[in-house]
Amino acid sequence: MPDYDVFDLGDVVLQHGATLRDAKLAYKTYGELSPKRDNAIVYPTSYGSQHTLNEGKIGVGKALDPSKYFIIVPNKFGNGLSSSPSNTPSPYDKARFPAVTLYDNVMCQHRLLTEKFGIETIPLVTGWSMGGQQTYHWGALFPEMVQRILPICGSAKTSVHNFVFLEGVKAALTADDAWANGWYEKPPTKGLRAMGRVYAGWAVSQAFYREQVHLKIGYSSLEDYLISFWEGRRLTADANDLLAMLWSWQNADISANPIYDGDLNKALGAIKAKAIVMPGRTDLYFPPEDNEIEVSQMPNAELRPIESIWGHLAGGPGSNEDDINFVDDAIRELLSS
Amino acid sequence: MPDYDVFDLGDVVLQHGATLRDAKLAYKTYGELSPKRDNAIVYPTSYGSQHTLNEGKIGVGKALDPSKYFIIVPNKFGNGLSSSPSNTPSPYDKARFPAVTLYDNVMCQHRLLTEKFGIETIPLVTGWSMGGQQTYHWGALFPEMVQRILPICGSAKTSVHNFVFLEGVKAALTADDAWANGWYEKPPTKGLRAMGRVYAGWAVSQAFYREQVHLKIGYSSLEDYLISFWEGRRLTADANDLLAMLWSWQNADISANPIYDGDLNKALGAIKAKAIVMPGRTDLYFPPEDNEIEVSQMPNAELRPIESIWGHLAGGPGSNEDDINFVDDAIRELLSS
Repeated sequence: MPDYDVFDLGDVVLQHGATLRDAKLAYKTYGELSPKRDNAIVYPTSYGSQHTLNEGKIGVGKALDPSKYFIIVPNKFGNGLSSSPSNTPSPYDKARFPAVTLYDNVMCQHRLLTEKFGIETIPLVTGWSMGGQQTYHWGALFPEMVQRILPICGSAKTSVHNFVFLEGVKAALTADDAWANGWYEKPPTKGLRAMGRVYAGWAVSQAFYREQVHLKIGYSSLEDYLISFWEGRRLTADANDLLAMLWSWQNADISANPIYDGDLNKALGAIKAKAIVMPGRTDLYFPPEDNEIEVSQMPNAELRPIESIWGHLAGGPGSNEDDINFVDDAIRELLSS
Repeated sequence: MPDYDVFDLGDVVLQHGATLRDAKLAYKTYGELSPKRDNAIVYPTSYGSQHTLNEGKIGVGKALDPSKYFIIVPNKFGNGLSSSPSNTPSPYDKARFPAVTLYDNVMCQHRLLTEKFGIETIPLVTGWSMGGQQTYHWGALFPEMVQRILPICGSAKTSVHNFVFLEGVKAALTADDAWANGWYEKPPTKGLRAMGRVYAGWAVSQAFYREQVHLKIGYSSLEDYLISFWEGRRLTADANDLLAMLWSWQNADISANPIYDGDLNKALGAIKAKAIVMPGRTDLYFPPEDNEIEVSQMPNAELRPIESIWGHLAGGPGSNEDDINFVDDAIRELLSS
């Protein structure tokens, strides 16, 4: 029995031209929608993760409190639950899964909220990493509907450096002959492991390793951390799914759509939502400087870096408690404003 | 005709137990050794490079001036000119090339200077990246001989994070089946290209890409920069050579020898040389914080970061002029003190 629901989107014409027929949006909700339908929080998923990862930050007494709010976690296309290379029927399966943007994702999420739940106003959208990027998209694409946004370790547009970091991640995975241009029968485990190992240097900071944090959180050696956490994390996912999501990430841009026609400052300026933008101080691929530039173009936003050595993992689900508490306090503050 | 000389080391017993029989140290000198043999500058090579790369910073009127100094550039073991997997006869060839430390390298370089040239005092050792790491080794292993050191974007000991970054680089290269555990007949070009692509995100900074520096230095697009510069750079080298040097880098530690027995602070404290330690402000794998900690343990050292967005490439041969001039000024200042 799946622990989530599926919203049938029908045939979705994607931004880049393909039609995703009989598209599925997998989602899970926590709490009850209020009679006025005014207590929804949208909490999109991050790269390579599903709604279950987000659950770590949802709970009674936490900022994302299902006794007060109706929390909707929509699974990203490509994450193995919503339409993905690994679950789409031929001929759009595997290596032929089409390019899906975060614009496509958020437009479909919007359909879920409006068509399924009749929601017209959203008190908060928040998310970490690619979830933060979707948060920015919600703010820019539905400025009248979204009251508040709190993107964590995300950005409105994937920076050139972030794109290059992902080129390295992709190159490591696809260097494995077993990948077979996506037409593998057995998983390209060598490439997936290599991908995990490349990730390990990027996702946490230099100081994280200098202070040997990995030895304090349940790993018996550096190699144990690299294998158990980083290789293990990538081995649980499908390679084509990971590559599909990676494409979405590389091409994330709130202005790459007919509304803003590539004018990023216009898109940032259109975000009416009250915003607290929370980069990780030591994030190596979503560095605070990128968010600082974005916030300067947003009419109602505050930059509030997470002072942490956890790099990109700062404030994300499953990271360390201090950072999560710092973010939770900001969410409470924003929701009460 | 090679443009360099070779010093026959004979049979070298390495730190990790193997014997490198009939070992070769390739080197090149610039300028004339003074009658008192007191004008030598040692300028070791960086990862994946040969003496030719260093030549960009040597010249009349430059800080490393061959009309004043006798500049010796010793090629690192594994770089394809000194003993390397690609040029060592069987049975120590290719994948069987032994583990060589920077201690091994510098001990052999010391033999070149003393046995071949009769040099007893060294006014300056300087180098960039792994050349900077060898510079630290010179200072710690021969404190009575080395008067000044100026390591650029290097460290006394490879940090844990730096080690992890290199794990990613290695994993990308070795994910290619063509690598064949080092027993390839044809180069594993897919892996070498992947390695270059992983490197591209690490070696320069987020701001380098944000300011589109790659488009101002002769590349027509981001992809052109990734292919021409980063993939191209790795394709010119032998995979086993790159892996041999990578091992040396991962295991660099001025205290990992019988003299200091793993006591890094003792080794740093023993460096008598007057030192200017020059990290790149935005270096992602030799960050300034690591040098700052080292300098605090050195009796005669100053930390002088290179304020640059060129990341690890700051101040290295072939990088931008401002950084090179900043480093050259420091070299002049140090030499005149």
